[in-house]
Amino acid sequence: MIERLKKQIEFIIEIDKIKNIFRKSKHFYNNKFENDAEHSWHISTMAIILCEYANESIDILKVIKMLLIHDIVEIDAGDVIVYKKTKEDVIREREAAERIFGLLPIDQKKEYKDLWIEFEKRESAEAKFAVVLDRLEPVMQNIYHKCESWNKHNISYDRVININTKIVEGSVKLWEYIKGEIDRCMCEGLFRTK
Amino acid sequence: MIERLKKQIEFIIEIDKIKNIFRKSKHFYNNKFENDAEHSWHISTMAIILCEYANESIDILKVIKMLLIHDIVEIDAGDVIVYKKTKEDVIREREAAERIFGLLPIDQKKEYKDLWIEFEKRESAEAKFAVVLDRLEPVMQNIYHKCESWNKHNISYDRVININTKIVEGSVKLWEYIKGEIDRCMCEGLFRTK
Repeated sequence: MIERLKKQIEFIIEIDKIKNIFRKSKHFYNNKFENDAEHSWHISTMAIILCEYANESIDILKVIKMLLIHDIVEIDAGDVIVYKKTKEDVIREREAAERIFGLLPIDQKKEYKDLWIEFEKRESAEAKFAVVLDRLEPVMQNIYHKCESWNKHNISYDRVININTKIVEGSVKLWEYIKGEIDRCMCEGLFRTK
Repeated sequence: MIERLKKQIEFIIEIDKIKNIFRKSKHFYNNKFENDAEHSWHISTMAIILCEYANESIDILKVIKMLLIHDIVEIDAGDVIVYKKTKEDVIREREAAERIFGLLPIDQKKEYKDLWIEFEKRESAEAKFAVVLDRLEPVMQNIYHKCESWNKHNISYDRVININTKIVEGSVKLWEYIKGEIDRCMCEGLFRTK
């Protein structure tokens, strides 16, 4: 086997590990916690279905690439709920990106590590829209499960709004939709943390 | 919420069900059976990493769209191991495509149902390359687990070669690689079915 393909296969097998990294939110249709592979599939598919709602003109292939690989760093750094991320968590993720994308041939290491950094910076039109999906899915799941995960982790309505208002930078339309859903949960008394 | 977005959200929640459809092959790094969401994520990511090995010039975004949605029909039709697929299974999948893509707005129903049909026909350059990834991942997993699933389902070396030789139509290079790995398993006596 040529050296280049060998490296690519090694990367492909290594990233299988995200199937065993569990998030804090649950599938819609059962009581299981979602893993990073399921999450990455779901938000990549959401990206192609909802791309018409992006604020700016976007390269959707770039968005999907970001979403497919954005959680790979959690193989080394673990999953941290967005509401509780620290500076140490960010450093661990950077080290993980170096090691895991470093399994790839040098040109692909650069492409995917750069894409991951671009996603984390949330500055480009593509990164802003990718963040929309990354935030939207767990919020939808939490609403579907009557705010269960937010209540378990003592996250208040104000904190949910504050963290997820980032969605507006990528999609005003999708923020209007999900803000309406969060407000409905508030009106129905589903938030237990004040 | 506008009618169009309502339909898209309904589709997005419905397809969550593939997280509960289990395949016959296992993750690389643990003993769990893989579900359709994990599989779809893994092969979409493999597509972007390995696209340089496609025989023909391909639209990689189209390939990824196919791979992200190709197993959605199994929500109604269930997972059938590729070695044992019948005409009745194919009919059930067509009915499922009509119902599930039918949840989307009419233009998107057409786009994604057409993409699914194109994938199933295996004629276009994109469909041929998408099939490469769909076949490659479970073969790699089976080899990693010393042919466990093939032996369990009484699949012989000849049958594995016969079914997976389709890979050559999308990628001569990746077929050379995986054929070599299957042959290695044969030489090492890992196939129990003659």
